[in-house]
Amino acid sequence: MALIVHKYGGTSMGSIERIQNVARRVAKWHAAGHKVVVVPSAMSGETNRLLGLAREISAQADPRELDMIAATGEQVSVGLLAIALKSIGTDAVSYAGWQVPVRTDRAYTKARILSIDDAKVRADLDARRVVIITGFQGIDDLGNITTLGRGGSDTSAVAVAAALGADECLIYTDVDGVYTTDPRVVPEARRLEKVTFEEMLEMASLGSKVLQIRSVEFAGKYKVKTRVLSSLTPPDLPLGIEASSGTLITFEEDENMEQAVISGIAFNRDEAKITVTKVPDRPGIAFQILGPVAEANIDVDMIIQNQSVDGMTDFSFTVHRNEYQRAMDVLNNKVKPAINAGDVIGDPKIAKVSVVGIGMRSHVGLASLMFRTLSEEGINIQMISTSEIKISVVIEDKYMELAVRALHKAFGLDQSGDVPAVA
Amino acid sequence: MALIVHKYGGTSMGSIERIQNVARRVAKWHAAGHKVVVVPSAMSGETNRLLGLAREISAQADPRELDMIAATGEQVSVGLLAIALKSIGTDAVSYAGWQVPVRTDRAYTKARILSIDDAKVRADLDARRVVIITGFQGIDDLGNITTLGRGGSDTSAVAVAAALGADECLIYTDVDGVYTTDPRVVPEARRLEKVTFEEMLEMASLGSKVLQIRSVEFAGKYKVKTRVLSSLTPPDLPLGIEASSGTLITFEEDENMEQAVISGIAFNRDEAKITVTKVPDRPGIAFQILGPVAEANIDVDMIIQNQSVDGMTDFSFTVHRNEYQRAMDVLNNKVKPAINAGDVIGDPKIAKVSVVGIGMRSHVGLASLMFRTLSEEGINIQMISTSEIKISVVIEDKYMELAVRALHKAFGLDQSGDVPAVA
Repeated sequence: MALIVHKYGGTSMGSIERIQNVARRVAKWHAAGHKVVVVPSAMSGETNRLLGLAREISAQADPRELDMIAATGEQVSVGLLAIALKSIGTDAVSYAGWQVPVRTDRAYTKARILSIDDAKVRADLDARRVVIITGFQGIDDLGNITTLGRGGSDTSAVAVAAALGADECLIYTDVDGVYTTDPRVVPEARRLEKVTFEEMLEMASLGSKVLQIRSVEFAGKYKVKTRVLSSLTPPDLPLGIEASSGTLITFEEDENMEQAVISGIAFNRDEAKITVTKVPDRPGIAFQILGPVAEANIDVDMIIQNQSVDGMTDFSFTVHRNEYQRAMDVLNNKVKPAINAGDVIGDPKIAKVSVVGIGMRSHVGLASLMFRTLSEEGINIQMISTSEIKISVVIEDKYMELAVRALHKAFGLDQSGDVPAVA
Repeated sequence: MALIVHKYGGTSMGSIERIQNVARRVAKWHAAGHKVVVVPSAMSGETNRLLGLAREISAQADPRELDMIAATGEQVSVGLLAIALKSIGTDAVSYAGWQVPVRTDRAYTKARILSIDDAKVRADLDARRVVIITGFQGIDDLGNITTLGRGGSDTSAVAVAAALGADECLIYTDVDGVYTTDPRVVPEARRLEKVTFEEMLEMASLGSKVLQIRSVEFAGKYKVKTRVLSSLTPPDLPLGIEASSGTLITFEEDENMEQAVISGIAFNRDEAKITVTKVPDRPGIAFQILGPVAEANIDVDMIIQNQSVDGMTDFSFTVHRNEYQRAMDVLNNKVKPAINAGDVIGDPKIAKVSVVGIGMRSHVGLASLMFRTLSEEGINIQMISTSEIKISVVIEDKYMELAVRALHKAFGLDQSGDVPAVA
């Protein structure tokens, strides 16, 4: 019998009926003899409602107080799920993060988990109780409630699984696994039975919304066997079928039986591109440009600096589209005069498309296949950035879907696809 | 400068605008140099909404889990109020009951406060912060969240005031004080500037809903100077006027400057009357009747047993109207056959009307004035019960308002009233 952690998102917990379905699913695993820990999110919409109340009062609300308010959403969820489990004869107990306790740093609204005490949870599991722990939150060394930021319940679940040495962490969600790309864009997209932790990390960081990126980091760091699977199947689906459904995130390359060179195509329209022109090419110039941007708490993603011509270069980078205007202001008002640069040119109408795959390590020619495919579709590449297992390009946003479909086919990811024509 | 505890009910916290008004009022007291602790309730309707979710799942929900869920309402309130105070420049910090901590017994959904740790609160007050503490809840020795039951925020506020040795506990509510009776029934009802703790206790226990009865007990036990006042006055009402408004609950009779014999007329329609007829008059018979009722968790209020005739007597008592049918079933099925009594006669259409006053201790003839007044209105008295400072009668419910108005006038409580014609 195994120790299993289940995580359910806000949609799965979105109504009393759905909570009762979650209870039936959890009870099925418990009845099969497994020790089960459940980490649910707040009911869908609840976190937004709570933070909306706070924002009505103040746009600059104290983060500690925001966490005090936001943490209540999950506390209601765990209580309701415990009641639902007990009402169908499965013993259960709920804990808020501070009761376990889940210890975090003091970074309110975006705290990081430091440690999880497993004594209480183990005692309950040994007494054959289902243990339900609030996602998204913990307690800092001052005794204040903290939250982990949006999507933090995924991280909570993986962290709990790591602390307990769970056999598997099942992330139940409204999709039935990780796909080669978004099936809404490419109908031929295939579900991956397995994906490596590193590929998942790139996919998550590139905007594939299946799992919060920090949860993937956690899974990798502590080697937590994590499975993404559907919460929309019937709760009484036979356990053997459910246990092997979805997508398993693995940690060893040889476990990756599909042996695909490329696992998926990730994409997003969340970014904007900014170019500072006529930058004097001297030591420290990157810091002089990006320092003030970082000070303004704006995250920078891709960064490109070309070979200089005549001691001048153009310096480009991307930021989240929500922070585009603020970044432009910082650059025009602070950076440009300070370094005596040329114009600052911005473009929010871009998309980032990436091919991701652990096989890149051992295969060459993938970049040229990518560039050739885009070229054949008449799509101009504006920026390129690569890592060991991904290649990202920035293109005009209106070509995004076209690019994704073409690349999905070219890399042989279609369900009917041929083996890709690479070495 | 004084240490003052403010308590605000759900209506006062019922919207963002109202929370902002509470913040302005609290800030006014803080700006005057006082140390201020605030105990707010959940936003109106919130506790019902939360418990409604739980009830949708199960009518017999685990009380520990109900407390886990219900306690979140106040946690949201304290966070919002802290944000509202900070947004107008008044430093503030919020605490859930478990953070203070407010220690209680393990009686989930109706816990009692055992102790309150004041160290953290005092440190914040010394740092000139307003401290906001969730009403209605605490933590037991197992680390579980407990709630105090409906109206528990009044008790929390008074208990916090007692623990801190506060100079005064101000209960802000939607009425502007304690009245001689309900102004909706008797327009001539007067607000009392002062009322003794014992009178308040009788009024509360007799159905006057201004303060939860346990909060009055707490105020009495720890001699907490408590004032009931309106939260509907403008938040910027001059502090001197606000501080002397409402009704002060006092602990020494000589403080009661009004020197009234009777302080008020309390009444309710919450009870039902039950009579077990032809009861053999022998030792232990009261226990044989009321034992099974108590076992069924039904509270009994007034109890009357008359002198027996021919070794038989009639035994009457009242129960809450919600428990009338259950009580009748217990009596007919268990008690009647066991003691070989006559018929069990029930009547839910009754009202209880009481005159309350500390002056009863030193005045005679009050009972006869009460009975004469009711007689002159043609109202038949069905049951009578007395304590040191109150006389209660049970009458047919349709006469309730008439009885209250007549007694209010007869005892000289009308605003234009004469001194009552008693010794």
